[in-house]
Amino acid sequence: MQNQLKGACIIGQSGGPTAVINASAYGAIKSALDSPYITRVLGAANGIVGVLNDKLYDLNREDEYELTLLINTPSSELGSCRYKIADFNEDDTDYKRILEIFKKYDVRYFFYNGGNDSMDTCDKINRYMQKVGYECRVMGIPKTIDNDLYGTDHCPGFGSAAKYIATTCMEVSKDARVYDRGMITIIEVMGRNAGWLTGSAALATKYGAGPDLIYLPETPLTLEKIYADVVKLYEKQGKVLVAVSEGIRDADGNLIASIFTDTTDDKDNFGHRQMGGLATRLATELKHLTGAKVRGIELSLLQRCAAHLASKTDVDEAIMAGKVAVESAVNGENGKMVAFERLYVGGEYRCETKLVSLSDVANYEKKVPVEWIAPKHNNVTDDFINYVEPLIQGWPLRFYEHSLPRYAKLKKILAE
Amino acid sequence: MQNQLKGACIIGQSGGPTAVINASAYGAIKSALDSPYITRVLGAANGIVGVLNDKLYDLNREDEYELTLLINTPSSELGSCRYKIADFNEDDTDYKRILEIFKKYDVRYFFYNGGNDSMDTCDKINRYMQKVGYECRVMGIPKTIDNDLYGTDHCPGFGSAAKYIATTCMEVSKDARVYDRGMITIIEVMGRNAGWLTGSAALATKYGAGPDLIYLPETPLTLEKIYADVVKLYEKQGKVLVAVSEGIRDADGNLIASIFTDTTDDKDNFGHRQMGGLATRLATELKHLTGAKVRGIELSLLQRCAAHLASKTDVDEAIMAGKVAVESAVNGENGKMVAFERLYVGGEYRCETKLVSLSDVANYEKKVPVEWIAPKHNNVTDDFINYVEPLIQGWPLRFYEHSLPRYAKLKKILAE
Repeated sequence: MQNQLKGACIIGQSGGPTAVINASAYGAIKSALDSPYITRVLGAANGIVGVLNDKLYDLNREDEYELTLLINTPSSELGSCRYKIADFNEDDTDYKRILEIFKKYDVRYFFYNGGNDSMDTCDKINRYMQKVGYECRVMGIPKTIDNDLYGTDHCPGFGSAAKYIATTCMEVSKDARVYDRGMITIIEVMGRNAGWLTGSAALATKYGAGPDLIYLPETPLTLEKIYADVVKLYEKQGKVLVAVSEGIRDADGNLIASIFTDTTDDKDNFGHRQMGGLATRLATELKHLTGAKVRGIELSLLQRCAAHLASKTDVDEAIMAGKVAVESAVNGENGKMVAFERLYVGGEYRCETKLVSLSDVANYEKKVPVEWIAPKHNNVTDDFINYVEPLIQGWPLRFYEHSLPRYAKLKKILAE
Repeated sequence: MQNQLKGACIIGQSGGPTAVINASAYGAIKSALDSPYITRVLGAANGIVGVLNDKLYDLNREDEYELTLLINTPSSELGSCRYKIADFNEDDTDYKRILEIFKKYDVRYFFYNGGNDSMDTCDKINRYMQKVGYECRVMGIPKTIDNDLYGTDHCPGFGSAAKYIATTCMEVSKDARVYDRGMITIIEVMGRNAGWLTGSAALATKYGAGPDLIYLPETPLTLEKIYADVVKLYEKQGKVLVAVSEGIRDADGNLIASIFTDTTDDKDNFGHRQMGGLATRLATELKHLTGAKVRGIELSLLQRCAAHLASKTDVDEAIMAGKVAVESAVNGENGKMVAFERLYVGGEYRCETKLVSLSDVANYEKKVPVEWIAPKHNNVTDDFINYVEPLIQGWPLRFYEHSLPRYAKLKKILAE
């Protein structure tokens, strides 16, 4: 093999967890353990923070069965962080420390699984190592429920979150239409800048029971417009279900949620400012406008950790992303992120991998194309639905004990 | 057969929906369709309100496959109501109307599926029909996620909600411990007067990932005590997960949530009072006390309609409750509710049915025994967990299309 490089590897997880980030970790760990070029497999405790603190788990000492259960385990089992690394031209303290740790363990491979910021971290570490002439291959593994990573058709984590949102919207839709009196229900979905997750609620409507109105952050909105939409539908049909992104904005790009939270009387008993809750606030206003029974539901963390509703497509692709990152690095690639390309073969969805430059990916957000949003800015188009639908398909093997999920129990022995 | 009575039946659903109330409807409808004594099977649209409005669905005209899918369908497919019927000694208007409808369709069997209030409705209708000498058999079918019905070991709907809560707590527990900084997460669970649902979160902790603290409505609490518990744990372990009932109370029986909502400055931009959100409020206060990252999560409607996480035990028992109600009535029983008795045969959990008098059940709430709550009022005991655990077991057959739930599509043709 050309470009042969032998040494230890570090695998790290970063940013908000997903239902399948551990499936990517499994794919990477398994491939690394199997590779004759990787002498030792280390897991960074809490991402880059674990490297800085010399807190690395010796993954060679884990049981194979427990490692396999990572596929079943939501959230970031190695721990995550939201550490913003400096530009090394301005402050290279962290980089010197990382280099020191890399040398200590003879680390020649660094795999980092995360979103936009994590790819930026990856890119910077790679450029620093090149600058100082330390031979090391740095690869990014994509991850984000928000699906906003540039350079890839979609991201691991998104399909499972979308499936959770669609399923939950179907269930709530049934519940929200059950009474003999009017009811307005607002479901708040994550996605501060991109509406991929919120738009996925449309799958529920397509298959029989879902939101009537869907609001994304990509097109300008006003509270008045939303209220007018809801009231009109309420007067017509008595029950209205709305899916709204936490990140909806006005024409100036200001978060509409901030209209509610930036008021001075918005305090609790102790004089502290009240936290978010866009759905609840919209519901409260709509109660006054219509007299309807209302409910505001925030899907909160539930939508990003619902491994019990994971999509097989997503799980399989997440494992593949981790595997391809390791194999590509061993084969000589460097400074790349594994990305997905969508193909349709005989009308059937297929997903292949490609490699994109980390510097192209870092810090750029992929939003929902405006042409996939309905002209009235209160729904998504069929193109949007056709994009999401293949990503939620299938049921992965899940491990249960006592009818509850059985998660990986790693020993997490610190490397010396 | 003795006590032979031939005629139509009405099946109605009432109160808050559950993941399995339609499974009970299926059990009752199927048995009624199969019975030679029941000439016609009518479904009341929105419970007793449908009877009063002469809005009854002709269930003989439904497709069998779609009726079977009721087992898969959350919420009350016939529609629900929260209609409080008067005492007939004070106002018999509704009762005269019900009698008129019963006579119009030759209704001789009335099956009502609901909680405490619905059993009260059932009981009153039964006593009125006896008073006026109209031969009719009235049977109650239990239902409530709250598990607070008297006279039965447990209620259909509870096991599935408990399974949802335990599973969700396991997932959130993973997510809530992922970062390298402190975090406090509060999960708010339904149950205004009884802590059965909140206590079920302890199953998650038993099997590896769940709340550290659990607060029920049955024992007196103060905000100060809760804050002290959380802060102490936070200082020790950096991450704290709390499950709290929406119905926690102080020593005088006042809802602790009302401390937050009954303030005058607690208004939105339009001068309207803000709705609940105990979890969010607790989280906000704890942020100020500790500086931790916090999350307040309200499980809201999700916990009562999560058919995708239904317990097989619960589904099977729900079907059985509907079936036994019909069979018992055909065999001459009247004025009873189907109740469950728990047996252990060779250490294995078994559930049998018995009949209890409607008048004994109506309007009495079964709370968690105080001896099943930990002395410090911040957890439940092993006896509680052993009680709940059998009820969440097993996976019922679920029907999916396009990897999303496939719900019953009833024709709902109005009876003439």
